[in-house]
Amino acid sequence: MILVLNPNSTQDVTDHIDRSLQSFRLPGGPQIVCDTLRSGPPGIESQAHVDGTSERLLDYFATHPQRRPPAALVLACFSDPGVFAMREELNCPVFGSAECAYFTAAARGERFGVISILARVVPRHRRQVRLLGLEHKLAADLPIGRSVVALSDEDATLSRLLEVGRTLVQSHGADVVVLGCAGMARYRDRLEDALQVPVIDPTQAAVAMAIGTLLQRGGG
Amino acid sequence: MILVLNPNSTQDVTDHIDRSLQSFRLPGGPQIVCDTLRSGPPGIESQAHVDGTSERLLDYFATHPQRRPPAALVLACFSDPGVFAMREELNCPVFGSAECAYFTAAARGERFGVISILARVVPRHRRQVRLLGLEHKLAADLPIGRSVVALSDEDATLSRLLEVGRTLVQSHGADVVVLGCAGMARYRDRLEDALQVPVIDPTQAAVAMAIGTLLQRGGG
Amino acid sequence: MILVLNPNSTQDVTDHIDRSLQSFRLPGGPQIVCDTLRSGPPGIESQAHVDGTSERLLDYFATHPQRRPPAALVLACFSDPGVFAMREELNCPVFGSAECAYFTAAARGERFGVISILARVVPRHRRQVRLLGLEHKLAADLPIGRSVVALSDEDATLSRLLEVGRTLVQSHGADVVVLGCAGMARYRDRLEDALQVPVIDPTQAAVAMAIGTLLQRGGG
Amino acid sequence: MILVLNPNSTQDVTDHIDRSLQSFRLPGGPQIVCDTLRSGPPGIESQAHVDGTSERLLDYFATHPQRRPPAALVLACFSDPGVFAMREELNCPVFGSAECAYFTAAARGERFGVISILARVVPRHRRQVRLLGLEHKLAADLPIGRSVVALSDEDATLSRLLEVGRTLVQSHGADVVVLGCAGMARYRDRLEDALQVPVIDPTQAAVAMAIGTLLQRGGG
Amino acid sequence: MILVLNPNSTQDVTDHIDRSLQSFRLPGGPQIVCDTLRSGPPGIESQAHVDGTSERLLDYFATHPQRRPPAALVLACFSDPGVFAMREELNCPVFGSAECAYFTAAARGERFGVISILARVVPRHRRQVRLLGLEHKLAADLPIGRSVVALSDEDATLSRLLEVGRTLVQSHGADVVVLGCAGMARYRDRLEDALQVPVIDPTQAAVAMAIGTLLQRGGG
Amino acid sequence: MILVLNPNSTQDVTDHIDRSLQSFRLPGGPQIVCDTLRSGPPGIESQAHVDGTSERLLDYFATHPQRRPPAALVLACFSDPGVFAMREELNCPVFGSAECAYFTAAARGERFGVISILARVVPRHRRQVRLLGLEHKLAADLPIGRSVVALSDEDATLSRLLEVGRTLVQSHGADVVVLGCAGMARYRDRLEDALQVPVIDPTQAAVAMAIGTLLQRGGG
Repeated sequence: MILVLNPNSTQDVTDHIDRSLQSFRLPGGPQIVCDTLRSGPPGIESQAHVDGTSERLLDYFATHPQRRPPAALVLACFSDPGVFAMREELNCPVFGSAECAYFTAAARGERFGVISILARVVPRHRRQVRLLGLEHKLAADLPIGRSVVALSDEDATLSRLLEVGRTLVQSHGADVVVLGCAGMARYRDRLEDALQVPVIDPTQAAVAMAIGTLLQRGGG
Repeated sequence: MILVLNPNSTQDVTDHIDRSLQSFRLPGGPQIVCDTLRSGPPGIESQAHVDGTSERLLDYFATHPQRRPPAALVLACFSDPGVFAMREELNCPVFGSAECAYFTAAARGERFGVISILARVVPRHRRQVRLLGLEHKLAADLPIGRSVVALSDEDATLSRLLEVGRTLVQSHGADVVVLGCAGMARYRDRLEDALQVPVIDPTQAAVAMAIGTLLQRGGG
Repeated sequence: MILVLNPNSTQDVTDHIDRSLQSFRLPGGPQIVCDTLRSGPPGIESQAHVDGTSERLLDYFATHPQRRPPAALVLACFSDPGVFAMREELNCPVFGSAECAYFTAAARGERFGVISILARVVPRHRRQVRLLGLEHKLAADLPIGRSVVALSDEDATLSRLLEVGRTLVQSHGADVVVLGCAGMARYRDRLEDALQVPVIDPTQAAVAMAIGTLLQRGGG
Repeated sequence: MILVLNPNSTQDVTDHIDRSLQSFRLPGGPQIVCDTLRSGPPGIESQAHVDGTSERLLDYFATHPQRRPPAALVLACFSDPGVFAMREELNCPVFGSAECAYFTAAARGERFGVISILARVVPRHRRQVRLLGLEHKLAADLPIGRSVVALSDEDATLSRLLEVGRTLVQSHGADVVVLGCAGMARYRDRLEDALQVPVIDPTQAAVAMAIGTLLQRGGG
Repeated sequence: MILVLNPNSTQDVTDHIDRSLQSFRLPGGPQIVCDTLRSGPPGIESQAHVDGTSERLLDYFATHPQRRPPAALVLACFSDPGVFAMREELNCPVFGSAECAYFTAAARGERFGVISILARVVPRHRRQVRLLGLEHKLAADLPIGRSVVALSDEDATLSRLLEVGRTLVQSHGADVVVLGCAGMARYRDRLEDALQVPVIDPTQAAVAMAIGTLLQRGGG
Repeated sequence: MILVLNPNSTQDVTDHIDRSLQSFRLPGGPQIVCDTLRSGPPGIESQAHVDGTSERLLDYFATHPQRRPPAALVLACFSDPGVFAMREELNCPVFGSAECAYFTAAARGERFGVISILARVVPRHRRQVRLLGLEHKLAADLPIGRSVVALSDEDATLSRLLEVGRTLVQSHGADVVVLGCAGMARYRDRLEDALQVPVIDPTQAAVAMAIGTLLQRGGG
């Protein structure tokens, strides 16, 4: 079972993540279960939110012992909160959705642009891109200026996503666009249709890698 | 349909790739078709082999117009022959199996080791790792000293794979091992069982990303 | 006032840090107060310990409002737990002792070696060195194989520090050595005398930068 | 004794450096002596000036044998003239003020901007930033277009410093500003008050590290 | 004999390359022979063109056995088609003209700008610059928007070269300009006269290195 | 006229450089004049020697005004003393022989090894390699432990050069070897014959680039 954990407490975000993974649930394939880390903040927006997730994840597994470890864990938040800690603590593959999104974007084009929620998260993103070695692939990382919770206002959000997405493609040369928040999942298709470049949803990117890991046995 | 093209002419390699992807074929999921580029050399072992693949791929699609473009193309060779050319020429996602293997390995651990076929291919691998930005993740790239065709001798091959794999893990600090040839697919499970670290098969890594790309529509 | 916070709960470590800063307390200079984050673990040894520190630091300041913000905060732990979070949350300069130690080492020589407590923390150190841009200055990072608490056994610890320090200098070409744990402070002088290269204590390095920041006003 | 050597012959620059270090002179702390390398040019503005400083420094110590070596040497010039040579020749810690300023800036924020005197020095600065590994932290390096000697015209200089400082912060995203000349020391406070980001004076940054080095003995 | 092979089939390009090398033919020096790979496309403009060159080069040497190997081979195309393959296959020094142009530019100034033919080749150039380690030296790479064949229209081409060259120097800070196509050779002098910075012709840069290699014996 | 300046005062070194360039003097080609900077030290072995060269070069040109500027200047010392200063001061192309040697080596193979005179110069070499962006191409830099003056003892020198050269090739994977001192010129041919990989003499590499620069006019 692939456990997809949304580390913020906003059930609406989990619901949309869950819906975005519906097509990944195939008969005979890995079960994909989405859950909400209810102890988390409404949105992972500060570094303190990111850091605090590790202990909340440990609590989650301590109180749901039947889920420790899942066959694979996907951290459904673009800050990859707790990704290094969970790799140390859990005896299963752990996928950070930002890591997977960046790598998937890097496998699709020359330069990726990132659409972030708030300006304050951009330095944190840049640190991760640098850590991964992908600075040379980053066209730009631009915020739409909306919090995680505000992403549910669809008209205003979509309009800003399109605006920032077009800037990334037209002014910064991005040939791939990465959604910089798991809460943007519901807008992926519309954005890709409008921008005409691949748009990567981080949770989907991570779940695809998790599926690959679970299916790989038995070949050869 | 995901077209998995083995650019060498060795049908035995394609057969084993095909078998290694059996578990990735799920009802309702993308069709996965493996084919052999019969015009290719028995193994892609020199840079000239790599370079020559692009034109053979264009010929392949010219003579199989019904396959141009597939929903996604996977180049099932660790040299990623033609990956940049195909991205320019084909109107579909193109996945290089080495790129995908390196990125998948980078998403799983701190440092990956690569098991290559021959010493002469190692500098080519290093150039690609550098191009991707992953030099800091490369523990070492060591050859087993066997050609693509010789990979079908299972006892001798497995023995060398285990030997080199152990050196990568124990002496070079690799916590993930990448199979540096699509023709090593049949040995993945046994190697992973013996080494007790994740072992990444490049074709599987690429097919997982291709599946993710094809399934992503309709979510949100 | 410079607040030097030991984020592990081992008072013995705080006491030795405090003693190592005695010479930094000069009449008319900044007051230097050392405190223990009693809610922390006995040693910051896992990534989960590191991540969990941010929230414990926020709690610390919430329950000691008179200390928020100090004139400068020094995080007296080589993992720099919470350094990015505290920079976002506190309206004062925040110094990570590993950051300051690495930079001070880089200002003293060509290549620094790091003496770590346990093998498991080395990958975390490497990520930070990479993030800072100092990979090219890192000679090697080697563990002594002792936990934070075990550092108080002076004979056994000193003997291992000397052994690993000599290996860094003689086999890896380090011309500066960085103590990779705030709990090693008491051994700095003896190690420097034996190795005959500069030995950097992380808390001292950070306090020196903090002092510089507090003294800089009024010049020119 | 910390010897702070201004390698240009402009006594007014030394005087202001001396004043900027007044607050660093604490009872019981290291003595801080500023001196002028009278044989130097009025300002270190060309690469030939930089290179020529090494021999003038050796002459300086040959003719002031009582000063060789000081407890620590600070090169009070943003070009760090002779820093590698003095480390080879003198048996004491040698601090380059640009190195220390860059490292201190890197310990305070995400991206630093540099205010240079003349456009012609910017490529030299860029080479040093690259050498140190901090290219990823450099927001921009912009000149005010004034020579070292002209820095004593306070109104004109301050006005340009403010202008360029604001550009670094507002257009280039700098969250720390580095003064790119020791002769700018007198403007630090005013600039920091106006820009509302940390402003790093290179000589102060180097003296703080030198103090830390001299005080570190006896702790633990 | 230095064999300068133009891998596109446009004889006019070879003729101008040949003329640009006239001054390199000195009595007693290496013979310089230019030839056209007639089997190539009119211009090497796509990645498939680049990749396809390796096999055409092997055919060329198979059908001109007297030319295998020459004393040195220069690939007179800015895409360096087949450079790694020829190094594996031929027992002689092989010079890629882009490699040599980039290195020569790096030996002349701080930052080089590249004038490309078409926007579509720029990502390929960027990959090569990254592979060589010279990203930090690249001011910008800008296309004139003309194909290889269209370079023979001298007025229109020169006008665009001047325009783009001025942008590289004035807006991007280039102090050296690299001609990003062997077919631009005829414009080098005029461009250098107008821009007043060194302008590097790739074939000339490669031939100079080849001459150096052939002349080096017998010294000391 | 290409002026090849040996910045150390050892005439024997200049004589051997001069002899090594004999084959580069072709009828109708640029005149190549070698001269000794008599004011220099017997060998450029310390950083102070390197730094001091800039002013001695300025003196040289001041007292030989007919030589300012030459058509091109080659600094015939592997430390490239004064290379940045001379580029600022002289209105002619200035070639550093180490820069040219590194770039030429990078154009010939995958990884170069450097043979240095003394262990103390290796860190200085490493700084330059880093500055140029070629760290990824450096196999290793190993000293033979002999000063510049001692290079004239041919038997002892050749024996050590061969020993260190073989280590670079066999243990460090170098496929090109760079002579790390202009005074090693006389050994190039013998070393190349023995090692069977290209051996790059720095002065020859620089003179080849200088010739290319002087011959480039009039082509197209």
